[in-house]
Amino acid sequence: MKRGGELRGARLAYETWGTPSAARDNAVLILTGLSPGAHAASNAEDPSPGWWEGIVGPGKAIDTDRFFVVCVNSLGSCKGSTGPASIDPATGEPYRLDFPELTLEDVGNAAYELARGLGIERLACLVGCSMGGMSALGYMLHHPGSVRAHVSISTAPQAQPFAIAIRSLQREAIRLDPNWNEGRYDDAHYPEMGMHIARKLGVITYRSAIEWSGRFGRIRLEPDKREEDPFGAEFQIESYLQGHARRFARSFDPNCYLYLSRASDWFDVAEYGHGSIAEGMRRIRLERALVIGVETDILFPLQQQEQIAMGLREAGAEVDFVALDSPQGHDAFLVDIERFGAAIGAFMAKL
Amino acid sequence: MKRGGELRGARLAYETWGTPSAARDNAVLILTGLSPGAHAASNAEDPSPGWWEGIVGPGKAIDTDRFFVVCVNSLGSCKGSTGPASIDPATGEPYRLDFPELTLEDVGNAAYELARGLGIERLACLVGCSMGGMSALGYMLHHPGSVRAHVSISTAPQAQPFAIAIRSLQREAIRLDPNWNEGRYDDAHYPEMGMHIARKLGVITYRSAIEWSGRFGRIRLEPDKREEDPFGAEFQIESYLQGHARRFARSFDPNCYLYLSRASDWFDVAEYGHGSIAEGMRRIRLERALVIGVETDILFPLQQQEQIAMGLREAGAEVDFVALDSPQGHDAFLVDIERFGAAIGAFMAKL
Repeated sequence: MKRGGELRGARLAYETWGTPSAARDNAVLILTGLSPGAHAASNAEDPSPGWWEGIVGPGKAIDTDRFFVVCVNSLGSCKGSTGPASIDPATGEPYRLDFPELTLEDVGNAAYELARGLGIERLACLVGCSMGGMSALGYMLHHPGSVRAHVSISTAPQAQPFAIAIRSLQREAIRLDPNWNEGRYDDAHYPEMGMHIARKLGVITYRSAIEWSGRFGRIRLEPDKREEDPFGAEFQIESYLQGHARRFARSFDPNCYLYLSRASDWFDVAEYGHGSIAEGMRRIRLERALVIGVETDILFPLQQQEQIAMGLREAGAEVDFVALDSPQGHDAFLVDIERFGAAIGAFMAKL
Repeated sequence: MKRGGELRGARLAYETWGTPSAARDNAVLILTGLSPGAHAASNAEDPSPGWWEGIVGPGKAIDTDRFFVVCVNSLGSCKGSTGPASIDPATGEPYRLDFPELTLEDVGNAAYELARGLGIERLACLVGCSMGGMSALGYMLHHPGSVRAHVSISTAPQAQPFAIAIRSLQREAIRLDPNWNEGRYDDAHYPEMGMHIARKLGVITYRSAIEWSGRFGRIRLEPDKREEDPFGAEFQIESYLQGHARRFARSFDPNCYLYLSRASDWFDVAEYGHGSIAEGMRRIRLERALVIGVETDILFPLQQQEQIAMGLREAGAEVDFVALDSPQGHDAFLVDIERFGAAIGAFMAKL
């Protein structure tokens, strides 16, 4: 692994849609944000809707009638791939904090091995959203020429201090929870409080003030839905955050969260270019790319998408840059299917 | 008090600079943000620099050679005025959560009584920064005609859901700290962890991503200044936040923080206008006003300053609206003394 550790017998969870062509030149690989698993869309084995159901499917923007689509759960995650919550075969116990230091380049390299394992020499398109966009840059930096086209969505060529501050505080909330216990929690003693705070802070930065002003305004909860506590939730926005936190806290492993969060802070294309993002980006070999950013995204601001677009252009790729005015901030790619579907579909149709 | 409680024998801490005119028509009253005390600037009794040292003083933007300047510590705070940390004369114990429900109108009304107590019938100017800007609106709504001119800085005519979400999460971090203990902490069992998280989240929203990118970038701490902890601070931005949290955690009372934070969420000029901010604002009687906002402020966005300016204009005041491009976000009024001093000084010179 990039920082020196090693994993033996690591596994990756992935799902596929569509059929590989004889030449295996129609593969689209999707790298995800921090929390989703490989279930991007419904399929025969799992008919439940996936996290990108509106984008991936027959006749959709990422058209599974045309492409052989693969979505992989990140190395270090807890949705089937090997991560800190997995059993270490050497000890029979979960890795926990003995899991080696993880970088997004490791996540990208693991995904590259998956593609090779599936007999794919060169991807028709590598798609990366949010953290997955950084993993995708890592993939392409380490394997130049292995990707023909790239879709980069709401991501960053390097972690900037505002995003680092947010993630550091999320990690701190988890680590300060006495139940975290240096990573040795169990279901009965679980850092639920820390995960709640981390998730709420995440949701606050994933959406936008303008969306919430329109959607929640100052609407209050019905009196019978308020807590007795004098400082308990009173406004709808508070119970919206509470719902998100409740759904997330037990469905994502806290140690995996810490590892992937820290990996995001570490990511920096400039490491590949003697301190220059533009120079680092020049190592990437692509034919064409689509770079999408959202004007209301405060976590991965538009300016960082412009840096990626310029860098790929200077590296010789033909780049479409699309700035969307979706009100939903960073999360727009998950919810503003109309705008994102149109942009991605138009690009994919040209491949 | 607005929500029905009452306080007996409440005190307000205040400081003054300059000399009242014979007619007592040269008074400037400053209402502060959530955390500062009454020490806005150095004076004979306390020569240490105040929180607005660059703005208040002889020949400065708020010229103490011309004006009799008063700064008051908010009711409900812990810097000398009566608040949840004060002793309840009825029990001899701190009020803690028995302190009555506090609103920013109560903070404004208390400040109005202070002015009356100082023999001031009508303020030459009422200045409100951040939370103090909301308290000032409360003051003017409840006492129309008691203020000649007004300076409104980086505040809001009503709390919007993004700000409510941030403050709700800050309160939750404090309340979830086992040492908070329903408000019954002491120095030995103090909700330090909760206060740290609350303050860091505050600082994140008080500044701007653009300032931090320029100031901290991805600069790392010297190896000998890093923590041993695998998830400990590694970047300068993390130790900057840690320094802020350390300085704040023990210097501001957690229960006072909860009361003032909740009061900010409750504030809404529309309550005075049958649901309309503009109609509520029309109850304010002013000759002139200066409304200042900062383009990089994410907590009290420029749009809310425009609402205040428009409202005061429709209420018949002559309004100067200034949008500053300070990079420091919400905190700019505390640090960008050059831009703020020029704007405030130009306005005060016309009074």
